[in-house]
Amino acid sequence: MAENSPTACVLVIGNELLSGRTQDANIKFLATRLGELGIPLREVRVIPDVAATIVETVNEVRARFTYVFTTGGIGPTHDDITSECVAAAFGVPWEKQPEAWALLASRYPPGGFNAARQRMATMPRGARLIANPVSVAPGFEIGNVFVMAGVPQVMRAMFETLVPRLAGGPPVISRAVHVTGVPEGTLAEGLGEIQRAHPSVEIGSYPFYRSNGNGVAVVAKGTDATLAEAAIAAAAALMRSLGGEPVPGEPPA
Amino acid sequence: MAENSPTACVLVIGNELLSGRTQDANIKFLATRLGELGIPLREVRVIPDVAATIVETVNEVRARFTYVFTTGGIGPTHDDITSECVAAAFGVPWEKQPEAWALLASRYPPGGFNAARQRMATMPRGARLIANPVSVAPGFEIGNVFVMAGVPQVMRAMFETLVPRLAGGPPVISRAVHVTGVPEGTLAEGLGEIQRAHPSVEIGSYPFYRSNGNGVAVVAKGTDATLAEAAIAAAAALMRSLGGEPVPGEPPA
Repeated sequence: MAENSPTACVLVIGNELLSGRTQDANIKFLATRLGELGIPLREVRVIPDVAATIVETVNEVRARFTYVFTTGGIGPTHDDITSECVAAAFGVPWEKQPEAWALLASRYPPGGFNAARQRMATMPRGARLIANPVSVAPGFEIGNVFVMAGVPQVMRAMFETLVPRLAGGPPVISRAVHVTGVPEGTLAEGLGEIQRAHPSVEIGSYPFYRSNGNGVAVVAKGTDATLAEAAIAAAAALMRSLGGEPVPGEPPA
Repeated sequence: MAENSPTACVLVIGNELLSGRTQDANIKFLATRLGELGIPLREVRVIPDVAATIVETVNEVRARFTYVFTTGGIGPTHDDITSECVAAAFGVPWEKQPEAWALLASRYPPGGFNAARQRMATMPRGARLIANPVSVAPGFEIGNVFVMAGVPQVMRAMFETLVPRLAGGPPVISRAVHVTGVPEGTLAEGLGEIQRAHPSVEIGSYPFYRSNGNGVAVVAKGTDATLAEAAIAAAAALMRSLGGEPVPGEPPA
């Protein structure tokens, strides 16, 4: 990775992942898109709907990473407390956000914009909206923290609308090669040498298990495609020297 | 949740989730099993294969939670550094673990138990093995930290072998009801009242989107089934009072 690349942290807020109710469907999307934008994802935390935990975590990670993206907890119900907690983390009032208020007020029939829905238009002072092309109720940004919905289709749409506001570094390039029938423990020593010879490339080794044979995928990531390709060529040569037949790319799913 | 329940933190160690290469397949399993065992999962962190980050994070979370479960980074390659980092976190030598050494040495043909594979039998001093019924190379526990493989089928098998060593609290019970056609913003006020009336039950509200209609699932979790059922009965009555037809359980996938 480029030494001076911006960094990202994702905060998944909500009890539903921690209780096992819900399978995460946001981390892979955000990891992939952030890599493409040159903002490598460096940490994910999944935390519950507990105010003190949210406030403390937001303050810790916004100081450590260039960008923080939160998902979840911005709906109308009692367990949606992300917005007020982000206000508390920044030490600013949690108040009516005029644009969001107008947007939501116009959406409901008379009486429909009730107290619960008004909470979705209540935000930290200074918040800038993140448009929600799917279901109207917006997210927001404040400082380096971007607050998005947890529902995957809404989160993805919100993320794409805010991409132009993010300052990325060089995109992270990924190259891969895989081999069947050569165990990871046989490749390991040579692979360690290849990593040492390519210090600016991040080389990962991932065993896979398939009904037609087990093997290992080697993935090289970095901001320089030529260097990543050189590392993969070296890994392919290593596989061949150990009696394997290297195949470009990741193994089929 | 019971106030005095033990707590769990899961540390997912590895670049592959943070790069978007891999879809997580471990968190939901561990969250579910830990809830059943009465050890509610309170936080998950996904961190990269970076030694300083692993050491610092292990030390932070082992002080904060009753149990810490790590996944990933215990294979034979250069990017598998979890074991040595856990030793550093505990301030103990990272050394040959005789049981693991004997186990792995007997598995390979002469010469096959090479330096890379010997790393899988090198552990923090005082480590106790976690058996690996799938692919032999064991995990280990030290203090309140349980170090497991990242490959889902191996992690699951390891977890089940160590369950008898975990001291759980009362299991977390979950009850649910859902309704189609009543928006979350309409339910929200009454649901907040139900939460306030059932403080020992954790009530979550989860909108869902289906081709045959959108709706809301209400989930009540706690250690007392009667209280969780009372909260769900109140939520069902609320749904009915707003013109909806409550259906027991979660909505079909």
